Amino acid sequence: MRAEILAIGSELLTPLRSDTNALHLTAKFLEAGVEVGARVTVADDFGLLESAFRAALARADVVVSTGGLGPTEDDLTRECAAAALGRRLVRDLGYVERLRERFARFGRVMAAVNEKQGDVIEGGRLILNPRGTAPAQVVEAEGRLLVLLPGPPHEMAPLFDEHVLPLVRARAGGRVLKTRVLRIGGMGESDVEQLVAPIYKTFTNPRTTILGAAGQVELHLTAEAASEAEAEARVEALAQPIRAVLPGRIFSEDGRELHEVVAALLVERGLTLALAESCTAGLIAARLTDVPGSSRFLERGYVVYSNRSKSEALGVDAALIEAHGAVSEEVARALAEGVLRASGADIGAAVTGIAGPDGGTADKPVGLTYLAISGAAGERVRRAQFPGERWRVREQAVKALLDLLRRGLLRIDA
Amino acid sequence: MRAEILAIGSELLTPLRSDTNALHLTAKFLEAGVEVGARVTVADDFGLLESAFRAALARADVVVSTGGLGPTEDDLTRECAAAALGRRLVRDLGYVERLRERFARFGRVMAAVNEKQGDVIEGGRLILNPRGTAPAQVVEAEGRLLVLLPGPPHEMAPLFDEHVLPLVRARAGGRVLKTRVLRIGGMGESDVEQLVAPIYKTFTNPRTTILGAAGQVELHLTAEAASEAEAEARVEALAQPIRAVLPGRIFSEDGRELHEVVAALLVERGLTLALAESCTAGLIAARLTDVPGSSRFLERGYVVYSNRSKSEALGVDAALIEAHGAVSEEVARALAEGVLRASGADIGAAVTGIAGPDGGTADKPVGLTYLAISGAAGERVRRAQFPGERWRVREQAVKALLDLLRRGLLRIDA
Repeated sequence: MRAEILAIGSELLTPLRSDTNALHLTAKFLEAGVEVGARVTVADDFGLLESAFRAALARADVVVSTGGLGPTEDDLTRECAAAALGRRLVRDLGYVERLRERFARFGRVMAAVNEKQGDVIEGGRLILNPRGTAPAQVVEAEGRLLVLLPGPPHEMAPLFDEHVLPLVRARAGGRVLKTRVLRIGGMGESDVEQLVAPIYKTFTNPRTTILGAAGQVELHLTAEAASEAEAEARVEALAQPIRAVLPGRIFSEDGRELHEVVAALLVERGLTLALAESCTAGLIAARLTDVPGSSRFLERGYVVYSNRSKSEALGVDAALIEAHGAVSEEVARALAEGVLRASGADIGAAVTGIAGPDGGTADKPVGLTYLAISGAAGERVRRAQFPGERWRVREQAVKALLDLLRRGLLRIDA
Repeated sequence: MRAEILAIGSELLTPLRSDTNALHLTAKFLEAGVEVGARVTVADDFGLLESAFRAALARADVVVSTGGLGPTEDDLTRECAAAALGRRLVRDLGYVERLRERFARFGRVMAAVNEKQGDVIEGGRLILNPRGTAPAQVVEAEGRLLVLLPGPPHEMAPLFDEHVLPLVRARAGGRVLKTRVLRIGGMGESDVEQLVAPIYKTFTNPRTTILGAAGQVELHLTAEAASEAEAEARVEALAQPIRAVLPGRIFSEDGRELHEVVAALLVERGLTLALAESCTAGLIAARLTDVPGSSRFLERGYVVYSNRSKSEALGVDAALIEAHGAVSEEVARALAEGVLRASGADIGAAVTGIAGPDGGTADKPVGLTYLAISGAAGERVRRAQFPGERWRVREQAVKALLDLLRRGLLRIDA
């Protein structure tokens, strides 16, 4: 079963506005086991709106629109939805009377334009809106459920939750959707795809989506079932063989990001960390301290941007830098050992690389990065060649150092 | 003339993801005087996608899609757009060869699945993407312009701005919209509003939008006119009286962020900087080194998270910390002086604060932050009490330290 959401209003198509209604509806649909196939934001224009309703009704089982139910000339939702269904609008005079009384209660006279707020698509019914003048309406047509909701979020959300969601759940027949996200470090998107595609292709439920970001890949496994437990079991049935082909690579299945996983491991083991960052220049320290309570494990960090600072602050021999260059296995190791010694922390970790766009040579191109750890998570060094622009190289270096720490802490083979 | 934007990807239809591409595209279309009629977010599903392309091509003059151009099974954009146009896909073997070489440069073998990234809709042409493996493509069909762009924002935006926007402008051929963004540091949104509202309310063209973010406020002035020059003159006519009521507060009118302004000032004056960060824990160093060439001014940084590190690395007297607390004017000053001395840089800058959610007391609540600079930009200390959650407190502290540096460098009164 599939839903589609239409957000109606030209003001939503300016760059600075975002549509909070869509987020609420998407979350509620997913909870009810209904997938949202498309979300459309459309201007107040008869042709566009009618076409949007027609397209949505052709491809979704439930279509929900928000907005365009006011009394003004711009408010075309009722007319366009009716036109898309090829039905007439019928004025609910009882509702118009009720609306007139509502105005009277606030000491106002209802304008004639408000009368059209009582128009209902033939065969449909109004849902009263205690928080505003625009009622919602529901129509069943050719097996589809069409719902028109007012735009203001504080009117829309309770109307949907109280009156529409029960109808949706009844149609979905108790089906639930469950998504698990497997996050993978240290591999590219196409490498992951080649390993896991032969597995997930043999499953139609769960469905699998693969998503690549700088320095990590995500697999989204979504199962549909009659119960939470069954959906969970279906997800697990696919997760198992995927884990088997990615040993030690999946760092999270519970929504946590890599820095949260590393922070939790450090706290769990009561270990402290000190960082020496060159090309990432504080990004790793900043990321780890996003987590509240990070003072329990982060002792300190050094942004050793100049060669002088590498020697003065962390005791890296200037001759070593001279001999091998600041971006080298030797200097990465000396930085990790130096920060371990200078800080008295349990683990020292270091990164040195060429973020670009300048500073690359034929021998040492932009993206070349060395990562090292020393101390209680073992002695490890890794060389990497990251593609992309400056920010991507840096982001991949952050992820790679965190993954090196994770693997060291878990004693997973390098 | 009307545009429509299709954002493609099932992951965009989960409640927690927002589509930043649409904001960029909407803003650029408006600047070019092209109205966005609809914005559609659609799942990775052949039927849905084909239908979305078909509907968009029926109602818009320019259709731009983002996403779904990767190498995996989920990436259906090329196939569905071609199907909606009733055209075939033709593989550009030259591009496939180029892609293979790109992989080889990074020491990797291209997977067979990547070959389909060279598929072009018959009659269309590829636009090379220097920042990723997925090229964009452009097709003209029955008077419509169809553009397929990759999904990652840092790939999409430059491809659109450099290659697509000129085509759109050529088609639109008329009115221009011009927006200038005035960025303001060290003031809250309502304080700015009170000063500038009496001015901008007397203008109908430009229109003014005020936007508050953590630690800064933006005024967007948008003028419409028959030419660039006229629009520019209209913007300037409003910018002048606004500048007069915000002396020394506007740090950028040319799109630059605060860290870029500070980096440029340091480079211009040939000054070096060293940082001592406690609550921001590397955020300021990381932000300043986003800028390529930052090794010209950043000497080093210290993430002095523990009290011990403040004393050991920067010589702050343990008795001073004991007497006043780590979050105090005295310790902020000692950190700035200590990092100046330890690094030999021209300027030392320090921040110490309580980011929360824990660690606050009645005397020193969460959000209390001291900022200090010492050396060639003068000796200054500032106390601030930042509202909000952990990330907001940290972000405001970053902006406040950068603004203290800017004002010191420009000798603007504290």
